[in-house]
Amino acid sequence: MRVEILCTGDEILTGKTINTNYSHIARRLTEVGLDVQRGTTVGDDRASLLAAFREAGARADAVIVNGGLGPTVDDLSQEVAAEACGVPLILNEHWLTRMTESYARRGRVMPTNNKKQAMLPEGAELIDNPIGTACGFAVTIGKTRFLFTPGVPREMRRMLDEQVIPRLLKLGGITGVTRLKRFHTFGIGESRADEMLAGIPGLAIDSEIKLGFQAHYPQLETKLAVRGDDADDLARKLTPVETEVRRRLGNFVVAEDEQTLEGILLAKLDADGHTLSVAETFTGGTIAARIASLPGAETVFKSGTITRTLPAGGASEETAARTAGDLRRESGASHALAVLMHLDDGADRPDFGAAICIGIADPHGTVTRQARLAGGRDWVRIGAAELGLDCLRRRLLGLPVDERIDFERR
Amino acid sequence: MRVEILCTGDEILTGKTINTNYSHIARRLTEVGLDVQRGTTVGDDRASLLAAFREAGARADAVIVNGGLGPTVDDLSQEVAAEACGVPLILNEHWLTRMTESYARRGRVMPTNNKKQAMLPEGAELIDNPIGTACGFAVTIGKTRFLFTPGVPREMRRMLDEQVIPRLLKLGGITGVTRLKRFHTFGIGESRADEMLAGIPGLAIDSEIKLGFQAHYPQLETKLAVRGDDADDLARKLTPVETEVRRRLGNFVVAEDEQTLEGILLAKLDADGHTLSVAETFTGGTIAARIASLPGAETVFKSGTITRTLPAGGASEETAARTAGDLRRESGASHALAVLMHLDDGADRPDFGAAICIGIADPHGTVTRQARLAGGRDWVRIGAAELGLDCLRRRLLGLPVDERIDFERR
Repeated sequence: MRVEILCTGDEILTGKTINTNYSHIARRLTEVGLDVQRGTTVGDDRASLLAAFREAGARADAVIVNGGLGPTVDDLSQEVAAEACGVPLILNEHWLTRMTESYARRGRVMPTNNKKQAMLPEGAELIDNPIGTACGFAVTIGKTRFLFTPGVPREMRRMLDEQVIPRLLKLGGITGVTRLKRFHTFGIGESRADEMLAGIPGLAIDSEIKLGFQAHYPQLETKLAVRGDDADDLARKLTPVETEVRRRLGNFVVAEDEQTLEGILLAKLDADGHTLSVAETFTGGTIAARIASLPGAETVFKSGTITRTLPAGGASEETAARTAGDLRRESGASHALAVLMHLDDGADRPDFGAAICIGIADPHGTVTRQARLAGGRDWVRIGAAELGLDCLRRRLLGLPVDERIDFERR
Repeated sequence: MRVEILCTGDEILTGKTINTNYSHIARRLTEVGLDVQRGTTVGDDRASLLAAFREAGARADAVIVNGGLGPTVDDLSQEVAAEACGVPLILNEHWLTRMTESYARRGRVMPTNNKKQAMLPEGAELIDNPIGTACGFAVTIGKTRFLFTPGVPREMRRMLDEQVIPRLLKLGGITGVTRLKRFHTFGIGESRADEMLAGIPGLAIDSEIKLGFQAHYPQLETKLAVRGDDADDLARKLTPVETEVRRRLGNFVVAEDEQTLEGILLAKLDADGHTLSVAETFTGGTIAARIASLPGAETVFKSGTITRTLPAGGASEETAARTAGDLRRESGASHALAVLMHLDDGADRPDFGAAICIGIADPHGTVTRQARLAGGRDWVRIGAAELGLDCLRRRLLGLPVDERIDFERR
């Protein structure tokens, strides 16, 4: 079934408001196994709305319309829907009563212009809004079922789950389930991951598995989208492929699904009864901030120290080892991570880089790692923070800390 | 001129990624006086892309396409653009050389699949990407000029301002110049700013000045968009209005235009020959990170310390004053900022809050500030970091540090 989402409103169209309603609706539909085919945004403008309704009505099986159900003159959804259906607007007595009663319960008289919210296209199916004055409704335009929802996020979200999605699943005769499996890696770029996973979709059992990537520097997200009849069927299809992807991406996988690198670190340190102190230079607190701000960090995170001047010896592996060792002793933490950086001279530029020296001291001794990153000040800072945290992850998990990463320069 | 924005990518379509590229592009176009008529989102799917190109080509004068220029198989923009134009893909030797040289400069060999990024529809106009491997390009489909931009935000943003918008203005025969004057405030919400600036557009001289707001918590951006014949004309129109806005927003203005709060702080400390140390708790390094990572910070930023446990005395103004005083003495910095926080108990929730106690010690003595913020862990942490930095700004500029802000709870 082809589903489209049509968002209305000048604030969304002109970018003044970021369209989080769209992403919420699309995500929820995808999660229940509905295929979102297109998203469209138009302003509070009669001609644009009418054209968008007609075009979607010629393409899709169902369209969720969001916004334009308010009481003011720029709220045009009911009017334009009636025009697209070729029917008049009719007062819905049931909804008028509901609104009037709702105002009365709060000791208020309903303003006259709210009556507009009870005017629906003739023959429309009412979609209840249990927490607001903008009711939803459904009509058929062309061959397509249009379901109208209000722009107020909490009203839309509740109506989507309780009223809209059940109608769409019924309309599409959908019974199966879907799953999106995600791997978060650090150290490999999108092209290398693509090469490492060559042939993966071909491993799927009697069903398509869709492989996709998304780069959020410094991490890369690798995704497997799979569909099945039920949870067992999903697991049967996904498990072998998931295992193979995990094997191929290997030590570069820092987290999966909702996990984060810093969350993994905190959980591992906590589970082993460890504590952590961090020393930073140019990363300026961003490494500490990743861990110290997490729920539960107060029992694990001992201290962070930030300086912009390097210790005697400059940025070398030896200095990093000494800094980590000193920090561990002085702070009393079981683990100490030191990330020292020697920046290139001069102004920020695309090839601006830095030498990064990482030292980790723990009850088993000290390890170090050196790397050069380039790509501008922000890029280098973000990469260095990730490299420091990833080295700590590798150390905690017994993996090699010096595996070469794609972002590294000679 | 009718301009449309077409965003491509499964992550955007399925709502996994919130489409901030769309809002950025739409906002910038609106600011320079271009009319955005529609936004469309489609996935990484040949048929959907082709249909969307053809439909937009029948409606709009110009379309900005965002995304799908990467090196992997699911990046389809060039291929589908060529199909829509009815021309083959041709290797752009110039771009291939640029990419190869760029890899070589970083001591790397270009992966084979990056070559795909130099394949452009025959006759396409190259749009330079000075900071990435995905070049943009422009082609005509139907009666419409299509301008293709990469999905990586920092590349898209730079190309939009430097390459895309000038082409669109020329295409639309839009002459004259525009200016966007921006004020960044901390401590006032959008409705309060709207009240404070009542009547401002009416002050414009023989030209419309468009007043707009954009909330990026914790800051609010107030924008004046003005159009004129030339730079002199712009200045004549803007100067009196700009002065009045600055006067009305008063102490809440933390920065203007490209300035940042942390940049202002660093410049002021540096100009006065001062140095700074910072002590943090739940903000976990985010305050230090704002300043320590800036160019030139090494001469000003002395040290940062982060703990997750409060000093003896807990989070009180007295403790904050003592912590700042001790830090100033021990670090040898001329200025010390301490931001202590006592978090509410329990799990994160919409009304989760914290008591924030700020102490600043400098050669003139010590000042303190106490406030309660609520709105969930992240909201509170971000607000506390901003409040700490803003108190330091106010102290450095001789402004009251205890002016009540809108986000504050009793």
